Amino acid sequence: MHLAQFLTHGPSFHSLGMWRHPKTVEAGYDWRRPQLYEHIARVCERGLFDMVFFADLNYISDTFTGTLDPALRFAAQAPEHDPMPLLSWLGATTRTIGLAATFSTSNQHPFYAARMWATIDHLTGGRAGWNAVTSLNSNQSANYGLERAASDQRYDKAHEFMQVCRKLWNSWDEDAVVMDHENAIFADPTRVRRIEHEGQFFKSRGPLNVVRSPQNGPAILQAGTSPKGQDFAAKYADALFAIQPRAEDGARYRDSIRSQMEDFGRQPDDCKVLFGMQPVIGESATHAREKQAEHNELVPLQAGLTILSAHLDFDLSVIGLDDDMTTRTEPQLERMRTRFLKPDGSGMTLREVAQRHGESVGLPQFVGTANDIADQMEAYIETAGGDGFMISPIYSPGAIEEFVDQVVPELQRRGLFRREYKGSTMRELLRQGDGSGV
Amino acid sequence: MHLAQFLTHGPSFHSLGMWRHPKTVEAGYDWRRPQLYEHIARVCERGLFDMVFFADLNYISDTFTGTLDPALRFAAQAPEHDPMPLLSWLGATTRTIGLAATFSTSNQHPFYAARMWATIDHLTGGRAGWNAVTSLNSNQSANYGLERAASDQRYDKAHEFMQVCRKLWNSWDEDAVVMDHENAIFADPTRVRRIEHEGQFFKSRGPLNVVRSPQNGPAILQAGTSPKGQDFAAKYADALFAIQPRAEDGARYRDSIRSQMEDFGRQPDDCKVLFGMQPVIGESATHAREKQAEHNELVPLQAGLTILSAHLDFDLSVIGLDDDMTTRTEPQLERMRTRFLKPDGSGMTLREVAQRHGESVGLPQFVGTANDIADQMEAYIETAGGDGFMISPIYSPGAIEEFVDQVVPELQRRGLFRREYKGSTMRELLRQGDGSGV
Repeated sequence: MHLAQFLTHGPSFHSLGMWRHPKTVEAGYDWRRPQLYEHIARVCERGLFDMVFFADLNYISDTFTGTLDPALRFAAQAPEHDPMPLLSWLGATTRTIGLAATFSTSNQHPFYAARMWATIDHLTGGRAGWNAVTSLNSNQSANYGLERAASDQRYDKAHEFMQVCRKLWNSWDEDAVVMDHENAIFADPTRVRRIEHEGQFFKSRGPLNVVRSPQNGPAILQAGTSPKGQDFAAKYADALFAIQPRAEDGARYRDSIRSQMEDFGRQPDDCKVLFGMQPVIGESATHAREKQAEHNELVPLQAGLTILSAHLDFDLSVIGLDDDMTTRTEPQLERMRTRFLKPDGSGMTLREVAQRHGESVGLPQFVGTANDIADQMEAYIETAGGDGFMISPIYSPGAIEEFVDQVVPELQRRGLFRREYKGSTMRELLRQGDGSGV
Repeated sequence: MHLAQFLTHGPSFHSLGMWRHPKTVEAGYDWRRPQLYEHIARVCERGLFDMVFFADLNYISDTFTGTLDPALRFAAQAPEHDPMPLLSWLGATTRTIGLAATFSTSNQHPFYAARMWATIDHLTGGRAGWNAVTSLNSNQSANYGLERAASDQRYDKAHEFMQVCRKLWNSWDEDAVVMDHENAIFADPTRVRRIEHEGQFFKSRGPLNVVRSPQNGPAILQAGTSPKGQDFAAKYADALFAIQPRAEDGARYRDSIRSQMEDFGRQPDDCKVLFGMQPVIGESATHAREKQAEHNELVPLQAGLTILSAHLDFDLSVIGLDDDMTTRTEPQLERMRTRFLKPDGSGMTLREVAQRHGESVGLPQFVGTANDIADQMEAYIETAGGDGFMISPIYSPGAIEEFVDQVVPELQRRGLFRREYKGSTMRELLRQGDGSGV
C-alpha cells in the first residue's frame, strides 16, 4: 500500500471546517508559516509515507453568487499561496519522503516548467513529483487574461507541453558533464543537443540549461477523470489521485486507466492509483462518530455550495437545495457525477452533495478506531483494487499525527505497509513492494 | 557600506576560471548540491552581508561562432539551474540574510510572478529580493519560441509588468485575514479587491490569492544601464548592481540614477548602488599578485570571447583580436562601452576586453592583503560615492570564506560596516545605517 498526505499551502484542504476546528485552533495553526509544513512533512516521513502532496490553484472563486465574498468568508480554497517554493524548503528539512505539487500547464511555457522541475529534482535528490494539470476554471483564466479554453484543446496543449518537457530533459546525456579541470573541458558538447521543437502550441530550441536530474525530470502525478484526462494520465503518470466515494466506482476507474496504459504499451503497475479518504479516528467507534459529527457541523452549508460551485465552475444558486443531483442534465455537472451517489447508489440532493463537498470535497470519511479505519482501508482496496490512499485531515496538524501514530502501525502489523524506506527517489518509493522497485 | 554576495546556480559566476581553480577542486565543489549554497549563505550571514544574490539566464549561448560548443566546453554561464527553488531552501537554513535572485519579466505573466514572489516573501519572513530583468538575448527568446523584442518595448512591458504586480500585492489589505473561528469568517471580503487590469501587454482580474506579505512583495533589485533600464531602476529599485571598472564612471552612473529618482519623487537614498568587484586576497601584496596571475591564467581567451559574445549577443569572431574596442561602432557594443577602458581612460583591444571578461565579466579585481582591499574599497567609494559592493569570488567557497574572515573585520574596525544586523526584512537591512532604517 502507498500513502500520500494531501496538503495545500493555504488554510483549507478538503475540509472547510478544518481551519476553525478547535484542535486546529488550539495547535496555534498558522498556514502561512513554512515551519508548519516542515513539521507535517517530518511526521509523514516518520510514518514512511510515499509523499506529501500540495494541491494548487491560481484564483479565488466568484462562481457561487457571482461575488468573491463567500470564498473569502469561508476560506473556500482561498487564499492559496504558491506551493512550489515550499517543495525546496521541505527538501532542506526532510530526507527521503517524496515532495509533490500541482503545477498547471495552462499559463506557462514548457521551457520554464522543464527547467524548474529538473532543478527541484536535483535539489531534492530525485524526490520531486509534478501533478501536471490543465486549468479549467474561468476565474483562473481571468487572472491570466485569457478566455477559458475548451477541455479537448487544453489536453492537446498539455500533451504537447509534456512532450516538450521530455525532449528538454533528454537534451543532456547522463554523462555530458565531464569537468576535466586539466584540459578546461566542462561538458562534452557532443552529449548535449538542441530539441528544435515546433508544434501546434509551442516552439522551443533548447537545449535545457539544467543537466540531467536524478529522475530525469520529476515523477508525474495526475488526477484526470475526463476521457482526455484519463488518456493523459495513462500516457505519463507514475501515480494517480482519484476521488471515488464508492469503491465500486473506484474499481471501474482504475480498470479503465490500466487498460489504457496497456494500449500505450505501459505496464499497469507503473502507475499507482491512490484513492482520496478522510480519516476520523476515535478512541472508540462512538467517540469517532461524535468527532465526525463535531467536524461536519463546523462546515456551513453555504461554504459547501461555494466550494462545489468553484469546482464545477457553475453557479449552484440556480438549483433547488432539495433537487436530486443525479436528475440534473447540466454538462458542467458531468465530471463529478459519481460523487452524487449514496453508498447504495441512490441519488443525493444538492443540499447533501454540497454539505459533503464542504466537509471533504467528496472524499469518503473512514470513521472509527485505528483498527476500524485499517479495516475500511483494506475493504476499499479489496473492491477497488487500488494501490493506496491520499489522506486528508479534519484538523491540522493533529489528525495527521494521529494517523501516523495509530493507523500506520496497524497497517504495518497487517503487512499492508512498508516498515522502512527502500529506495531514495519518488519513483523508487512508488515501486517499492511491487517487485520492480528497489 | 552594504555587501551582497554574487552567486549563480551553476558552475561559473563572473570567473570562467573558478570551476577549475585548484582551491575550488580541492574543496570538492559540486555546484548541483544545495548544501554548497547553504554553506555559502551561512558564511555570508556570519559576515553580516545584506544578501546573497543569484544571477540567472534561461539559455546556453551559441553566439560566439554559432555553435553551443564553446559555451559548454568553457562553462560560460552554462549550465544554469533555476535559482528560484534555492531561495526557499536558503530560507529554511538561514535566519536574517536577504535572499535574492534574477527573474525575467519577458517570458511570464505578472500574476504568476506576483504570486511566487509574495509567497517567497512570506516563507522567508520578508527577506526576498527580486532582480527584475528583461531578456535581451536571442538564445533565450528561442527557447521560449519568441522573436527578440526591441529594447524599448521590452521596458514598456516590464513597467506594466511591475505595475500589475504592485496592484496584485495591494489587492489584500494588511488586516484582511480575521480568522474569526466562532463566526466562521476567515477573511473580511471588504478588504480584498479585484484589480481589473487591462493594459497594453497584460490583462489580469485579481485579486491575488496570496495575502499581504511582510514586505508587501519582495525588495526590488535592478542592474539596468540603458536609458530605459535606468528609468526602470529609478522608479522601482531598492538596490542596484553596477559593473563599472572605473570609479569615475561609477560616480556618473550613480549620479544619473539619483537624479532620475528625484524626478520620480523618490529619495535617492532609498536605492542603494552596489558596485561589482572581485577580491583577490593574499598574505602579502606579492602573494596576492601571484594569486591574481594564477587565477587569470586559468581562463582561456576563447572562454572570454564566448562569454563576452553571449553578453553582447554579438559574434565577436568577426572582430580582430588586436582591434581597439573603443573604435568599433557596432550598436550591440554600446551597452558595455565603459568596460572597454583602461584605468587611464585609453582603449582596450578585443583580446584584452575578452580576457578580462572571462576573468571577471569586467568587475574590477581588488588585489592585496585584507587591509589593501579595504583601502581599495574605501577609495572606490570615495570617488564613486556608492553604497557598497557586490562581491564575486575567484574560487568557491574558499574565497568567500576568506573575504568574510579577513576583509569584513577590517571594514568593521574602520567603522565602514555593520557589527550586527538591525532589522529583519531585506529593505530594513538595506536602510540600516542611513538613519531611515531600524
